[in-house]
Amino acid sequence: MTDNNTRSLSLLGLGAMGTALAAAWQDAGYALTVWNRTPGRATALADVAPAAVAVPTVAEAVAASRLVVVCLLDDDSVGEALADADLTGKDLVNLTTSTPAQARARAEWACERGARYLDGGIMAVPPMIGAAGSGAYVFYSGSRGLFEAHRDALSAPAGTNYVGEDAGFAALHDVALLSAMYGMFSGVAHAFALIRKEEIAPTDLAPLLTSWLTAMGQSVGSMAGHLEDGDYTTGVVSNLAMQVAGSATLLRTAEEQGVSTELLTPYLTLMKQRLAAGHAEEDTTGVTDLLLR
Amino acid sequence: MTDNNTRSLSLLGLGAMGTALAAAWQDAGYALTVWNRTPGRATALADVAPAAVAVPTVAEAVAASRLVVVCLLDDDSVGEALADADLTGKDLVNLTTSTPAQARARAEWACERGARYLDGGIMAVPPMIGAAGSGAYVFYSGSRGLFEAHRDALSAPAGTNYVGEDAGFAALHDVALLSAMYGMFSGVAHAFALIRKEEIAPTDLAPLLTSWLTAMGQSVGSMAGHLEDGDYTTGVVSNLAMQVAGSATLLRTAEEQGVSTELLTPYLTLMKQRLAAGHAEEDTTGVTDLLLR
Ligand SMILES: NC(=O)c1ccc[n+]([C@@H]2O[C@H](COP(=O)([O-])OP(=O)(O)OC[C@H]3O[C@@H](n4cnc5c(N)ncnc54)[C@H](OP(=O)(O)O)[C@@H]3O)[C@@H](O)[C@H]2O)c1
Ligand SMILES: NC(=O)c1ccc[n+]([C@@H]2O[C@H](COP(=O)([O-])OP(=O)(O)OC[C@H]3O[C@@H](n4cnc5c(N)ncnc54)[C@H](OP(=O)(O)O)[C@@H]3O)[C@@H](O)[C@H]2O)c1
Repeated sequence: MTDNNTRSLSLLGLGAMGTALAAAWQDAGYALTVWNRTPGRATALADVAPAAVAVPTVAEAVAASRLVVVCLLDDDSVGEALADADLTGKDLVNLTTSTPAQARARAEWACERGARYLDGGIMAVPPMIGAAGSGAYVFYSGSRGLFEAHRDALSAPAGTNYVGEDAGFAALHDVALLSAMYGMFSGVAHAFALIRKEEIAPTDLAPLLTSWLTAMGQSVGSMAGHLEDGDYTTGVVSNLAMQVAGSATLLRTAEEQGVSTELLTPYLTLMKQRLAAGHAEEDTTGVTDLLLR
Repeated sequence: MTDNNTRSLSLLGLGAMGTALAAAWQDAGYALTVWNRTPGRATALADVAPAAVAVPTVAEAVAASRLVVVCLLDDDSVGEALADADLTGKDLVNLTTSTPAQARARAEWACERGARYLDGGIMAVPPMIGAAGSGAYVFYSGSRGLFEAHRDALSAPAGTNYVGEDAGFAALHDVALLSAMYGMFSGVAHAFALIRKEEIAPTDLAPLLTSWLTAMGQSVGSMAGHLEDGDYTTGVVSNLAMQVAGSATLLRTAEEQGVSTELLTPYLTLMKQRLAAGHAEEDTTGVTDLLLR
């Protein structure tokens, strides 16, 4: 029996993230039907979302609401869990982390089964879900109609950012941001390693690093502009020729401090390669193009 | 003839940075004596600091002021330029980029010649020098007495941050921040490469990247705290086990999008290595320790 009340939804998956989502929806006043492969998980749920109705089968969960949210381990578990489900007329929101190609394939799969499909990429850890001001948000892409119809429900656990009809775009944005984060972390790890044996407190360096990275993060916008207009020229201020020359000091310092350059060298090498290809007057934007095969 | 007036100084080096410094000091009302190896450079200077007195020899420049600022290409050029200079009783401020070891050796060298020595690392490009609100600043380390005595002069072109008596610390901070920046840029290059062939505008992704990196930059502080107390445990939220598991999606997405993983893999590999060493419950702080030899 489908409940068409937009203030109700079904949630599949009560892992760390699913449980946090359930708590947020219950707090926001949604009637919840939940399912988890291992029924034991409903115990944790009893604490945070006592009003949620736990059902023993996927079929019952899917039947209970028009809006069906899935938050499982990976794309394979989604396929497994929903293999025999009747998705006709359902609005399926998949918050399981996947690659863009997996999301696109899953969208097609859902369409063939008569469901509207929205893919999501959660930019948060569970404690941020449902916490006002945490900055948590979810990238959504796929069916715009689904997104508009359930905007209130989708906005309850975290902020929303709809990035397009292409079901793969949410995952692509998610992965792009996470990949960029690991780049930043690699730079930070190197920086801390440089001072590790010195009488400099990491907590003294940290605020300097943070504000420097925040300031330099502004150049992301100018790189984006360069990529769009195809002209990467920066002129005489900090051009590639100067930056490659300056990189010798970075490498030499790492050596002096007994720090491996394995996190630093790959980017410097690509800068050098771009310079060698005759782009002395550019900024570092061209490194992006060297990554494409 | 030494001018002990603290409102005067001598500047060696009128490259891009030296010229910007000269303009800032003249604007702030300092009497300037300048020298450059190639006298022609004084032409550009005439526009920005017309009152500066250009002298033909290092000896004359050094003799003219107690405070002598050097901003040349590299440490070798400093040694060359000052080889025969009489530095007795001088306050030598070296703004030439160098490694920590070079700065320490240069401090000793200056001490042997009877000068106080302060090393500087400029966190700015020339257009930011002397521009209020640009955020430009200079790391200083070495003689605290020199720094205190000339604090006003040193504050004219940019903000100051004195980081210790060890003459190598300014360079070390400088290099740490620049290295971290290239890490962040490598992440950003990868992120842009991922969307390069998609209908996603780089200028749409840029503000998302910037605010995400700014938010994630806050974890630099908790990594620093971990490094200080030696306990890198984070518990169940986003621990190393989960992050290593999640990294498969990042690598697979890169492959799907035809993007080389050369900027991404080195950090992920170290995360895996740390996990394999039995640190599943930690955050990523331990990567730093793997960089030390
Ligand atoms: N936690 C985070 O910080 C975070 C952040 C952003 C995104 N995400 C994403 O959110 C999703 C869920 O993460 P999580 O932290 O909740 O993971 P989790 O705590 O490990 O929970 C995994 C969930 O998937 C279920 N599951 C696994 N394999 C299954 C299968 N074959 N069939 C049916 N159910 C299966 C598990 O059920 P059992 O209880 O039966 O094992 C459990 O409910 C993942 O895609 C993750 O990438 C998580
Ligand atoms: N520009 C920046 O964005 C920036 C930012 C931070 C730090 N810095 C640092 O500031 C310093 C100067 O940079 P810059 O941008 O001004 O460089 P630049 O424009 O290339 O100027 C180099 C200066 O060094 C002089 N020089 C080179 N070799 C010399 C030698 N053997 N003896 C005497 N003088 C010599 C040059 O004199 P000639 O005119 O005779 O060649 C010129 O005055 C460098 O250490 C740089 O790393 C620069």
